[in-house]
Amino acid sequence: MPELRKDPIIGRWVIISTERGKRPTHYGQTERRIKPKACPFCPGNEAATPREIIAYRSDGSISNQPGWSLRVVSNKYPALIIEGELSREPKGIYDKMNGIGAHEVIIETPEHNLDLVDLPVNRIKDVLWVYRERYMDLQRDPRFKYILMFKNHGEAAGASIEHSHSQLIATPIIPKRVAEELIGSKKYYEYKERCIYCDIIRQEITDQERIILETDSFIAFQPYASRFPFETWLLPKAHVPNYIDTDIDMHEELATVLKGVLMRLKVGLADPPFNYILHTSPVGNEYRDYYHWHIEIIPKLTKVAGFEWGTGFYINPTKPEDAAKFLRELEIPDESVSV
Amino acid sequence: MPELRKDPIIGRWVIISTERGKRPTHYGQTERRIKPKACPFCPGNEAATPREIIAYRSDGSISNQPGWSLRVVSNKYPALIIEGELSREPKGIYDKMNGIGAHEVIIETPEHNLDLVDLPVNRIKDVLWVYRERYMDLQRDPRFKYILMFKNHGEAAGASIEHSHSQLIATPIIPKRVAEELIGSKKYYEYKERCIYCDIIRQEITDQERIILETDSFIAFQPYASRFPFETWLLPKAHVPNYIDTDIDMHEELATVLKGVLMRLKVGLADPPFNYILHTSPVGNEYRDYYHWHIEIIPKLTKVAGFEWGTGFYINPTKPEDAAKFLRELEIPDESVSV
Repeated sequence: MPELRKDPIIGRWVIISTERGKRPTHYGQTERRIKPKACPFCPGNEAATPREIIAYRSDGSISNQPGWSLRVVSNKYPALIIEGELSREPKGIYDKMNGIGAHEVIIETPEHNLDLVDLPVNRIKDVLWVYRERYMDLQRDPRFKYILMFKNHGEAAGASIEHSHSQLIATPIIPKRVAEELIGSKKYYEYKERCIYCDIIRQEITDQERIILETDSFIAFQPYASRFPFETWLLPKAHVPNYIDTDIDMHEELATVLKGVLMRLKVGLADPPFNYILHTSPVGNEYRDYYHWHIEIIPKLTKVAGFEWGTGFYINPTKPEDAAKFLRELEIPDESVSV
Repeated sequence: MPELRKDPIIGRWVIISTERGKRPTHYGQTERRIKPKACPFCPGNEAATPREIIAYRSDGSISNQPGWSLRVVSNKYPALIIEGELSREPKGIYDKMNGIGAHEVIIETPEHNLDLVDLPVNRIKDVLWVYRERYMDLQRDPRFKYILMFKNHGEAAGASIEHSHSQLIATPIIPKRVAEELIGSKKYYEYKERCIYCDIIRQEITDQERIILETDSFIAFQPYASRFPFETWLLPKAHVPNYIDTDIDMHEELATVLKGVLMRLKVGLADPPFNYILHTSPVGNEYRDYYHWHIEIIPKLTKVAGFEWGTGFYINPTKPEDAAKFLRELEIPDESVSV
C-alpha cells in the first residue's frame, strides 16, 4: 500500500510509492532499460494492460480487443490504489494517510507512431472529452478531493512509455500548487470581487505581446512571470471554474487551440519533451467565484531543475514576450494535419 | 538589466534573465556545446573570470594570480546585477522590480579534477567558512533580504562548468520555498512555543531509522516526507537560526558531516548529479525564535520533473527509511581521503 506523508513545515503531501518502488541499490547501477518486446498500448496487446474502464470503439468491436480509437485503463503500476478506506493517523509528530486514490492511463490513439498533436482535431476532442467523462465518474467518490489530468511527452519529461498517452490521478488531498492558486485567487476575489484569471486575460488582451493564439472562446499566452522558457497557459475566456463546466460544443474549439499550441512547440522547438497539466477546481462548489480552469504547458528545455526545486526560485533565460512572438509568428506548414 | 517579475496568483517572484539570455531560436537547434579551450576556474586563467572578491592564498601570492586554494569572483553571466537602485513598479495588473542583486562564484579548489567531496576536511571547512564571510559582507547592503548559497554538481543538476564550485545569490526578495518555511515554522512556534526543526530533530533521534550520520553537534537524515529518493537534510542539533551564528570552532565538525554525507552519495549512488542549498534565516533578527538553518541535499536520480513542477505534488519511489539505511550502512573505503 502506498503512503501519503505530510511535510510538517510547509504542509506538502508526498506520495511514497511502493507499487512502483525502487530499492536503494537500484540507483548506483547504470540504467538497463529493458525495451518491452511489444508496446502494451498497441492494438492486439490489450491483455498487457489492466482491463479497460472506458473505450471509444467502432460498432460491434469487443471490450479489451482491437477496434478502439481511444482507451482508458488503470495504471499497471499505480502511485495510489483504489481499494480501501481512507485513514489519517499520526506518526510521532508527523502525519500520514494510506495511499488511496485512482491512477488511470488514457491511451490517446491506437497508432504507435502518432503523437497527440498529430491527431485530427476531432480525435484530440475525444481525448479532452474523455478527461471530462472520467472526472464526472470519479467525482462521485467521496474519498477524492482532487482529480488531476496531465500528459508527459518524451522521456526527459517523465514518459516511460513512448506510445502517446495522458494520465489521471484522483487524490484525497489537493496538490500544493493548486492549493496555492486557490488561496491566491480567493484573496484577490475578496479584495476586488473579480476573478484574477479573468483580469489576467483582460490584461493579456490589452498587452497582446504574450499571446500565442486566440479564438472566440479560448486564449493561449505565455504568463508574465513565466518560470520556464515557452511556458504556456491555455484558458477559456469566459469565467469557468471547473473543466467539467466546459460543454461538448466548446470542445472542438478547445481541441483546435491545444493542437495549435502543441504544433507550434513541436515545429518551433524541434519536438521538445513537455508536460501539460489541467488545473481545474477541486471537487465541490465552494471555489466557483474565484477559480478558473486552465491548462499549463511546460516544455522541458533547460536543465536547472534542482536549484529551482530546492528554493522555488526560478531563473528564466528567455523573455516570455520574445518566446510568444516567436511562436505566434511561426509558419505552421499544415495546421490541420490529419491521419 | 535583468527583471524580477511576480506571479500575481501565488506571489512567486521569477528572474527574467538577460545577461544569460537565450533567444527563442536557440532552443530548436541541437545543442552545440562549445568546450572552452581552457577552464576559466583553473590557476593561470584568473583573467578569464571577473576580478576576485576574496581568495584564500599562500603568503606572498598576488591577487588574480595563481597561489590560491579558494577563490570568490562575481559571476561572469550574473542572474542579477549589483549596480543600481532598487525600484518596484506596476506593469498593468502585474508587479516588477529591476534585477538588483549579487551573483558570485566560489571556486572551491584549484585542482580541476577534484570535487568538493574529495577535498580534505580542513579545505571543505574553508569553503563553508567563506560562505559565512561573504554573507557577513553582503548582509550590510540594505537592498538585500536574502543570501542564498548553493552548489550544482554535474551537468544534469545545472552545473555548466565542470570545475568544482558553489554559487551565491543575494536577492531583494525571500525565495518562495524559504518564505513557506518561515510561515510554517512561525505558525508552529505560535502554537507550541517550540522550534519545529528542533522537534523534528528530537523525533528523528527517537525514530533512528532515517538518520545517516550524527555527531555531537550535527545530524543528517532523510526527511519523513522526502520528495526525492535520497533527499538529505543536514542540521545543527542546537537551535541556530542563521548560518552565520555557527562559529568557527563548529565548522570542522560541519565539514566532516558534509563530507561524510557527500561521500556516501558518491560511493553508494555512483557519483550522481546533485544540488545542495543552504537554507538560512533571511537577513534580520525577527526569525530567531522559530527558524533553524539547514542544508538540503537533493540528488538528481529520477526524471519526473515537469509534473512535479506543475503541481507541487511529488511521487517518491523509494522510502526514506530504506534509503537512509542503505547510506548509513555503506562501507566508505577511506573516510578521510586527502589530496
